[in-house]
Amino acid sequence: MPLTPDDSRFLKACRSEPTDATPVWFMRQAGRYLPEYRALRQKHSLLELCHKPELAAQVTLQPVERLGVDAAILFADILLPFEPLGLGLAFTAGEGPQITRPIREANQVLELPPVDPAADLGYVIEAVRLVVRALPPHVPLIGFAGAPFTLASYAIEGGATRNFAITKRFMYTEPRAWHELMRQLSELVGRYLAAQAHAGARAVQLFDSWVGCLSPADYATYVFPHSQRALQLASDADVPVIHFGTDTATLLADFARAGGDVIGVDWRIPLDVAWERIGARAIQGNLDPVALLAPRAELERQVRDVLARANRRPGHIFNLGHGVLPETPVDHVRAVVEWVHGG
Amino acid sequence: MPLTPDDSRFLKACRSEPTDATPVWFMRQAGRYLPEYRALRQKHSLLELCHKPELAAQVTLQPVERLGVDAAILFADILLPFEPLGLGLAFTAGEGPQITRPIREANQVLELPPVDPAADLGYVIEAVRLVVRALPPHVPLIGFAGAPFTLASYAIEGGATRNFAITKRFMYTEPRAWHELMRQLSELVGRYLAAQAHAGARAVQLFDSWVGCLSPADYATYVFPHSQRALQLASDADVPVIHFGTDTATLLADFARAGGDVIGVDWRIPLDVAWERIGARAIQGNLDPVALLAPRAELERQVRDVLARANRRPGHIFNLGHGVLPETPVDHVRAVVEWVHGG
Repeated sequence: MPLTPDDSRFLKACRSEPTDATPVWFMRQAGRYLPEYRALRQKHSLLELCHKPELAAQVTLQPVERLGVDAAILFADILLPFEPLGLGLAFTAGEGPQITRPIREANQVLELPPVDPAADLGYVIEAVRLVVRALPPHVPLIGFAGAPFTLASYAIEGGATRNFAITKRFMYTEPRAWHELMRQLSELVGRYLAAQAHAGARAVQLFDSWVGCLSPADYATYVFPHSQRALQLASDADVPVIHFGTDTATLLADFARAGGDVIGVDWRIPLDVAWERIGARAIQGNLDPVALLAPRAELERQVRDVLARANRRPGHIFNLGHGVLPETPVDHVRAVVEWVHGG
Repeated sequence: MPLTPDDSRFLKACRSEPTDATPVWFMRQAGRYLPEYRALRQKHSLLELCHKPELAAQVTLQPVERLGVDAAILFADILLPFEPLGLGLAFTAGEGPQITRPIREANQVLELPPVDPAADLGYVIEAVRLVVRALPPHVPLIGFAGAPFTLASYAIEGGATRNFAITKRFMYTEPRAWHELMRQLSELVGRYLAAQAHAGARAVQLFDSWVGCLSPADYATYVFPHSQRALQLASDADVPVIHFGTDTATLLADFARAGGDVIGVDWRIPLDVAWERIGARAIQGNLDPVALLAPRAELERQVRDVLARANRRPGHIFNLGHGVLPETPVDHVRAVVEWVHGG
């Protein structure tokens, strides 16, 4: 066992160094598929779990020992910055996040209050400190934030969407307000990630979950400079930065060019194809989360396919292409960890 | 003006022959963005409009003259075959289709009744006949059907989904039942498309709207042979076949190999990149439907970008990457037709 996080499999892989086994963690590894998480949710709302550092830390730690993963990921929600931004945030059962005062007019962007993530999201930073103190030394904590585009899309749509029509219309119709919004969000999340790193997170991930709804040209025009800025601010904190998106196959060159020591990809693109396209850089992924609902034999086949495509090249971090689904059997998640570690 | 549909811009482009101008039509060009459609929907439900050939024909014809498009697309719904299949079909305001008896167990597949599309969907075939009689000779009618995967996903999920978890779990857990379901659906839609062609449709389109949720490996294993079969049955009717999907960038080689004289792609992949990948074949696409909500200048810029990427190479049919959105201004759709035609 390595004695410091720096020697951990996960951080070595972030630096594209060889490791004794492929490191693995799971997006949403702390969450609804775990009975101990569901038990806590009986007593506390999702936002309560986020707002109380002791609870957020407890949830963050839940899967670490149980699964044997190589990194912890902070329990939080990418939309928490909407509270200090005054947009209003609620979670309704089954419907996901609801933004109560979505941005629909250009002038709303100019009225957004300044946010100091280290203070205004201080409860997240405190959770980072608590987790870091509690984690075994060989398990680094990953901090995270939503990417400017994904945050902007929620801020404008007001919730989940299939076609991102309101977001794109705003982008096309109010390009100056769009860029100002993206500029503010990129500063906010960049500094937020840096604050998490300063509090002890040993890596940070920028989640651009919905960026794949864009054409490559729109990504280049409306998103790229802002993601680049957020990633740069995070990198200034001197921890590895993971740049994650789904459905990024056609914009992967620009997506990787925006930054990140590690590029996270989903199952739509074979891992080897993606790795070739991003060049000399670490890669994270890319099992379909639904594969965890498959029979064990099919799940194992798909895990081994991802590993075969990575071919033990240094710099592969095994993960899903998106978060663990609530209906996932815990023993399947554990089995994946064992297979990835060489079982 | 050409005197027969065979000499029409649209059918020439399907055959990759040069045309005087790029042909253009729009998925969902008959639909909710048109006031005359909304007026009819005040009096009739969506299913009534589909079930009554006179009404379906009327809706099909609504946009043809108003927009000046180069083809008509039959007004129908891809899920209509679920009625003779006994799955139950309803449309609820705002929520989209609801399948009342979704397929969740393998044995349900074996109990599906045989469907003869020419008879059991005779009202659609009758609508085709009525439209063909009413259309000007230079405007061909396009028939269509949902592709086996997209239909199977609705049949199994029971409605819209974001992650296709129930569908993929069924596919992984019950591969024999999955392939039997896909076999039945491919025969059904293949013969359905052929019946539309025999009734006078001069081209047919297979809609695989949701296939892009799959990894390329899963597409090859679970979908490819069935799409190929459906497309082959349609081709046997001796009309050009359009094979359309969204989010197909990473599986486009296999998608094109499955068949189709024309390959339809969405905005996620630049048209020239897609065209290079599908080889010597016609291509359809690929403006983002949300661009129609942009200010006119931005819309024109995006239309001209698609045209520039096609570069007047014979075999380009201008279309969107998915259907017209209900909130689309009609005059923007008309403007696109004019720009594409060389205005």
